Order: sequence, then structure tokens, then C-alpha cells
Amino acid sequence: MNQDPIRIGVIGLGNMGSAHAGYLARGEVEGAVLTAVADPVAARRDWAQEQLGNEVRTYGSTQELIASGEVDAVLIATPHYAHPEEAKAAFRAGLHVLVEKPAGVYTKQVREMNEAAAASGRVFSLMYNQRMNPLYRKMRELIADGELGELRRINWIITDWYRPQSYYDSGGWRATWAGEGGGVLMNQSPHNLDLFQWITGLMPSRIRAFCGFGKHRDIEVENDVTAYAEYANGATGVFITSTCDAPGTNRLEISGERGKLVAEDGKLTFWRLRVPEPEFNRDYKGGFGSPETWRIEVPLPGGDPQHHRAVTRNWVDGIRTGAPLAAPGEEGIRGLELCNAMLLSTWTDGWVELPLDEERYLQALQERIDASSSRKDPAAAGARLDVQGTH
Amino acid sequence: MNQDPIRIGVIGLGNMGSAHAGYLARGEVEGAVLTAVADPVAARRDWAQEQLGNEVRTYGSTQELIASGEVDAVLIATPHYAHPEEAKAAFRAGLHVLVEKPAGVYTKQVREMNEAAAASGRVFSLMYNQRMNPLYRKMRELIADGELGELRRINWIITDWYRPQSYYDSGGWRATWAGEGGGVLMNQSPHNLDLFQWITGLMPSRIRAFCGFGKHRDIEVENDVTAYAEYANGATGVFITSTCDAPGTNRLEISGERGKLVAEDGKLTFWRLRVPEPEFNRDYKGGFGSPETWRIEVPLPGGDPQHHRAVTRNWVDGIRTGAPLAAPGEEGIRGLELCNAMLLSTWTDGWVELPLDEERYLQALQERIDASSSRKDPAAAGARLDVQGTH
Repeated sequence: MNQDPIRIGVIGLGNMGSAHAGYLARGEVEGAVLTAVADPVAARRDWAQEQLGNEVRTYGSTQELIASGEVDAVLIATPHYAHPEEAKAAFRAGLHVLVEKPAGVYTKQVREMNEAAAASGRVFSLMYNQRMNPLYRKMRELIADGELGELRRINWIITDWYRPQSYYDSGGWRATWAGEGGGVLMNQSPHNLDLFQWITGLMPSRIRAFCGFGKHRDIEVENDVTAYAEYANGATGVFITSTCDAPGTNRLEISGERGKLVAEDGKLTFWRLRVPEPEFNRDYKGGFGSPETWRIEVPLPGGDPQHHRAVTRNWVDGIRTGAPLAAPGEEGIRGLELCNAMLLSTWTDGWVELPLDEERYLQALQERIDASSSRKDPAAAGARLDVQGTH
Repeated sequence: MNQDPIRIGVIGLGNMGSAHAGYLARGEVEGAVLTAVADPVAARRDWAQEQLGNEVRTYGSTQELIASGEVDAVLIATPHYAHPEEAKAAFRAGLHVLVEKPAGVYTKQVREMNEAAAASGRVFSLMYNQRMNPLYRKMRELIADGELGELRRINWIITDWYRPQSYYDSGGWRATWAGEGGGVLMNQSPHNLDLFQWITGLMPSRIRAFCGFGKHRDIEVENDVTAYAEYANGATGVFITSTCDAPGTNRLEISGERGKLVAEDGKLTFWRLRVPEPEFNRDYKGGFGSPETWRIEVPLPGGDPQHHRAVTRNWVDGIRTGAPLAAPGEEGIRGLELCNAMLLSTWTDGWVELPLDEERYLQALQERIDASSSRKDPAAAGARLDVQGTH
């Protein structure tokens, strides 16, 4: 094992980057030390110098930080569009990389990032902190172990991403095609889109989605989504998300041949069939009747309650010891593909087959950027919101 | 008030008709007396003579019963396709009519039935017994009173209609286009489709649906449905139903500008916003934050726990005293229109605008009947399942 601590640079000191820099500077990630930060906004660099300690170098650009020789690894928390380019530059410099969600805005750029990561041989992870949530880990474990048998239905109503107009007004780049490349699917729900495929181990074969753009809000991107998914094994799914529902709902229901899992209110309930449904259906001759079902409250294990920090710890462990990653970076393309497919289905008013046609998506996105009435400069953004209680 | 009891004839002595005849014969509907029943199956007439008492006349055909002069009103519980024709014959004879669900199989025939009812001036009701359920009555009342404000989202996962293969095998006409004209939407979910519009007071403006035909079952009709609905006021909805989920779910969530109602496990919860969402959104400047919400367990009133009997009582009261009907017969077309639209959307793989093009639907249905490999005769059906616990 390498006994020297991994020297970490944090790129981007917005809402999330400053939080990451904070726990790293406080020494909360064993085996890692924060040595550098980068942000083009002078006020943020001033904040860093005051808050993070004198040992932390500050840079005005990603390029300077990468070229500084002060870091072994970087945590990238810049605006979405920049993630893949900055990650590729870091891989070229031989650095390990942890990227904030989303992996990028369109799958073409993320695929190129994944290729650069593979060529570099460096440790690449995504800030999918919800993969550290014991609730979702347990669901994934039960499904992977076959407790549900073949999956049949996946319904997630995840509408508790309430954002008032003042959130959207807090940065001119927010909720624009040019600035963020999407709305609730790109900003609030990337974790959910990742979990939608990570928990089940299934990617849909095709998607038909219905996005509302600027619903009850003065924005141009989607903030209300209902998506229908079909899977190769015959299963179907529904994914509903929104930023204007109050109060929202977070209820994930997954059913299969052997029963049903429901996650709601932080609890996991398993309705377990005593005999699998196909077997009951084959043998039962009574016309009306259904399989005997046992209701089980599934105990959830503990874990680091700060899931962001847990991902960073896992990534650092991966660098130091080769420990398996909870959120390998190359998997970031999956949730993004679902996001892109939901938008493309709405724009084309039709089915989108997966794998997604990445060129077609990029072209459709570019059309929205070109037609956009919002032409604000992301780099002009200096405001920082209090992200207490957000993800 | 007419002091003579209303003389009732029950037409069709299958699963439901025999149950209706039973409580009528036991005198459980005040102001009504069962005087006649009709069924083409001799074994069922024998059952009636043994079980319903000597005063009840038995007929081998609807026509004979209607022409007998023994009845003032008929309760029609024949196979679905026959409902409109038999109701029209009864209206022509000046009889009051209560029709089992569904109102019919396609909206064209039901519209004609409604026209005949209006022309007759007789009292016409539908066996929408779930409109008597205190849970759903309370939801409708709260929404009608404006407690939710303008509605925004309606999600019903109503998959607890489990039916094993032996149910489908119990009658050759079951789950065929020629015999029943549909599957779960026609047989199990008509109540839910009615409530979907009755509780909210809203019909969708268009529907995009995804039906699975013969999923995990050897049948030709739909038994697994996911439908997306859009409304003129901007609201959206999802309706999911199935006969192969075990255990299923029955969770209805309706949200609006002033909060959210959830009906599940026989309970009604109201998350009430202290100030309506549009007002909060206008005034709140904090970026992150959401309206103060109060969780309320809504008390449910009592009522006749036997909802079928309650509808029959309401209909008889309507005949005797002009009391308003809980389920006016002409409203049966609404749930059927949703059912037809969901099938047509699947068949055409596209949107269906409402009001539905009734000729187009009938043509599409006829194509399925013509192409059907199931050519069993509904009239040959003599078997009767135990409907304890069904609806």
C-alpha cells in the first residue's frame, strides 16, 4: 500500500465543489490531503484561501491546477458541460478522477471521457453518492441475489425535488440549454436515473417519455417528466419526476416473479411470495385466488451517513489499495443515456431505442441551444446557494 | 311517494347477476321486490327456482322477461357486449334500468344506449359500486370543494387484480375479443377507470397507452396496462393496471396547487400546504426551500359496507322518490372511453385524442375479433365462479 496520502485537487468551487473541499480540508478522508483548488471566480478563490488553510494552493484555471504537479487526483465539480473535457485533460496528465454528477450533458462526450479513462488506467469514479444509501444498496443486493426473481415492473415516483422560481433565478446559467443542457433530469434526478438502472441491473430497450418544459416556472428546460420504459425481458417501468410538486413523493416499487419491494419514507418493505408467481399460476386451479404473501420489513445496515464523503473515501481507497469502486466512472453514461432518451422522445414525440443514437441527440440538443432565448454566460456565475439538505 | 314496491327483474344469472338476485330476493333493498329473472342457461334457471323462492318467475330470454308485464325495472348482468342492446329494449318497454359494469364494449353502442335512456325518461343507473366507497367519495368531495386547488398530477397504480390462468380457463368466452371485447380494462378495472375521472371531475384531453396482451397468461386480450394522460389544464396522469402482479398495489395519488391526497391501504392521507404552491413560489426568495406542509389523516364516514347493494338501493330510491343517483347511467361512457382510448393508443402506437373517434375504435376492435383464434360461444358458458371478495 502507498503510505503517502493522495494529493487531491478540487476543480470548481460552486455549491458542491466547496462542500467537497471542506471535508477534504478537515481531513475527513483517510489517506487523502487537499492540496489545491481551482476556480475562475476570484471571490471563490478568496473564500478558499480563508477557509481551507494555507497549505492549499489556489488556481484560476483547471489547466494550471492539472499542470501544477501538486496533485495526484482531481475531483471535478465544474458546470455539467465541462466535466468530460476536464476529466480527459486530467487523464492525459496521469491523474485519477472523481467527477460530480452528471457525467456530462450528452452521451457522445461522456463516451469519449470513458475511452480516455480506460486508456489512462487511472482510477475513475462518479459522485453517485446515493449508491452509498443503505436503502438502495439493500434493494440492489436483494435483486442481485434473486429474491424477486425475474423483474416485471419498476415504478418510481420521485417528485420531491421542489425548486421555487428563486432557485432558477439564482444563476443566469441555470435551467438553460446552453448553461446546463437540461432541467430536472440533468440537475436533480441524475442520482435517481442512475439508481433506476443500478438497483435493477437492467437498462431499458426503449423509452417513451413526456416532458413538460417550464411548467409553473419561467425556465426553458424540462421540470416535469413522465417516462415509460420497456425492457428486453418484458418488464415495464415508469419514472416520474418534477421540481414543482409540493409536497413531492419518493416511492420506488419494484416487482418480480417472487414478490414486490417498496421503498418509501426511508423504509424498505418486501412482500415475499411463498411460492413464485409462475409456479402458483401453473398449479392453482381455483379461478379466483392469489399466492400467499409475507410482508417483511427489511432491516437496513448502517454506513457513513454522509454519502458524498463516502464516495470520495471509496475512490481514494480505490487509488490506494485497488478496492472496488461503488460508482465506477464509466457507468455514468447509463443514467445520462436515460436522461437523453427521455428528452429526445419528447422532442421527437416517439419511441427512442437504446442504445441511444448519440449524434442524433447532440444535434437535437444543439437545436435547442441555438433557439434559446437565454444567452447568459455560465462563467459569470458567482452566486452560491446553501445546499444544506440537498443532494 | 309510490307505496307499491318496485318490481325488479334480473337479467343474466352469472357470477354477478346471481349475487344481485340473492340480496333482492332476501328483501335487502327497501321498496323493491324481485319478481323475475332471465337466463338462457337451464341450470341457472333451476338454481333460481330453488334459491330465490316461488314468487320469482324465470324466463329463458331477456325478451320474454321484458314483455312479461311482471317488472317495472331491470338489472342487466349479461355479458358485456349485450348490455346496450338489452338496456335499449328495456327502455323501449318503459322500464327503469340498472346496468352492470362495463356500460358496454365500445362507446358507439353506449352512446346509443344513453340516447335511448334519455328518450325514455326512465331512471338509468350503472353498477359503479366503488362510487359508494367512503374513501373515494371523500376524495371526490375534497377535490370538488377545492381543497387541492387546481389539479396537477394523478397517479393510480391499481395492480391488485390478480387472476391466474385458471380464471381465464373457467369460461371459453373469457379474455377474448369476441367474447368480452377486452381484458383487464374491460373486466377488472372499469371501476377504477370510472373513479379516475369521477373523483377528479376531469377527463383527459389525450392518452398514450402501452398495453401488454397475454402477458404471462395464455389469453389474447390486454392484461397489463400503463397509460399516460394529459389534461386541458396542464395536469398529467398515469394509470397502471394488471392481472399478473402478485402482490399488486392499490395506491392513488392526486396532487394539486394546495397539496396531495394519497389513498392506500384503505386510508386517506392529505398533505395540505399552509399556503398554495403558486403563492409560495411567487413570494419565496430563498432558492432552496418548499411550502410548509401539514400531514392530515382524513376521517372517513361510514356507509353501507355492501357497495353493490347500496347502488341498487340508490337506484330504487331514484325510481321511487327521484333521489339523485350516485352513478347515473349516462356517465358509464366516460370510463369506457378511457378504456377504448388506451387500447386504441396501443394498437395505433400513438396518441389518442378525446373525445374518442368511436367509428375508428369499433373498426379496430372488429379487426381483432376477425383475426381472433378464439372462437368460443359466450352463450355456451354455464360455469360460475365464486366471486367472494371480488368487485
